[in-house]
Amino acid sequence: MNDNEMIRLEPPGSLDMAIGEAMFTQRAIRRLDPDRPITDGQLRTILDAGSKAPSGANMQPARFLVIRDRERIREFGALYHEAWWAKRRDEYGWSDKADIPEGSPYRMPALLADEMVNAPAVILAFSLPSGVAAASTFPAVQNILLAARALGIGTVLTTLHPQVMERVHAMFGVPQEMAFHCCIPLGFPRGRFGPTVRFPTSRTTSWNDWGNPPPWT
Amino acid sequence: MNDNEMIRLEPPGSLDMAIGEAMFTQRAIRRLDPDRPITDGQLRTILDAGSKAPSGANMQPARFLVIRDRERIREFGALYHEAWWAKRRDEYGWSDKADIPEGSPYRMPALLADEMVNAPAVILAFSLPSGVAAASTFPAVQNILLAARALGIGTVLTTLHPQVMERVHAMFGVPQEMAFHCCIPLGFPRGRFGPTVRFPTSRTTSWNDWGNPPPWT
Repeated sequence: MNDNEMIRLEPPGSLDMAIGEAMFTQRAIRRLDPDRPITDGQLRTILDAGSKAPSGANMQPARFLVIRDRERIREFGALYHEAWWAKRRDEYGWSDKADIPEGSPYRMPALLADEMVNAPAVILAFSLPSGVAAASTFPAVQNILLAARALGIGTVLTTLHPQVMERVHAMFGVPQEMAFHCCIPLGFPRGRFGPTVRFPTSRTTSWNDWGNPPPWT
Repeated sequence: MNDNEMIRLEPPGSLDMAIGEAMFTQRAIRRLDPDRPITDGQLRTILDAGSKAPSGANMQPARFLVIRDRERIREFGALYHEAWWAKRRDEYGWSDKADIPEGSPYRMPALLADEMVNAPAVILAFSLPSGVAAASTFPAVQNILLAARALGIGTVLTTLHPQVMERVHAMFGVPQEMAFHCCIPLGFPRGRFGPTVRFPTSRTTSWNDWGNPPPWT
């Protein structure tokens, strides 16, 4: 096949969950079952779903690195742990869990710093350099999260502190010009997909003029 | 309701399309039917779906402006037309359709510069200032595009040239500190949701090391 040839794909039969159910029950899953494997076929379905998201002029700058090897996930997990705490140190001056206040939205994410090593797979999202790189990568990332949810696989959308990026590039041989966007651990949940809470759209939406509420307020 | 109160939502019954079908048939729809209205209820469903996407620490910085008023869509359409051509002038030196080469990925998008005025609704996506603004807005945007597709409503993800941004902020009273991310016209398609083509994931995915192909190559 020509390297620049693009293909059509049929929807995979396994992505048969109603889209409303997938979207309204998608949530960050941080406790991953290390003993329940994800198959290569499932990862392909998830990445194929990502490929169908829109990008500027269909240029598709997003590129994904899948980490499957246990030893490499362990190495990466140690870097992730360092990165997570470096970010909290910068932003809040925290250095361990005891520093995180009750009720902080970071109490659960702190778990992930320990749990990354348990992920059966981790996807790192990069893109070719582009003026619309984030706009052309995060739609694919959201398709990945939703497709995983539809397969019963838990994910979290998370980032890395700049302090570790050089080592991440070196660890996996990622060319310097590739822009890093996010990190997605994947695994079957220990526990369930519970409900999520959000601001009502009446609060986040303006109608015709900024600050003018929508008709469903 | 307290302004900071978050809510749970049940999946809307109308979002019953299989997620695979929605993802694999989502495509940019640029020819919109001006005579087939979108209801406020459909817009609410679409924005509710957007609200369920993940954001950093669930901070939900995304804010949406819905333009419904015909006269304002006409005004905005004129700005969009100017912005579209300003971007092509900057990037390629083009000033009208005759300048766009055969086979360019911009021949179809050029249509949209004329068609924006026909959209029954336009959503502009902004966010509160945030270090992870794009990462916390484009997942919601993708949910919006997919939910619209599931309702049979066409969309395009598009941007605006900086040349018009000040006038857009003034036209709708958008505070200066809000970051603009993208523009989404919505309407029932004149024509059909045809197939899309993409690079195969075997080309866009690395396995354990950069450049190492996935097992499905």
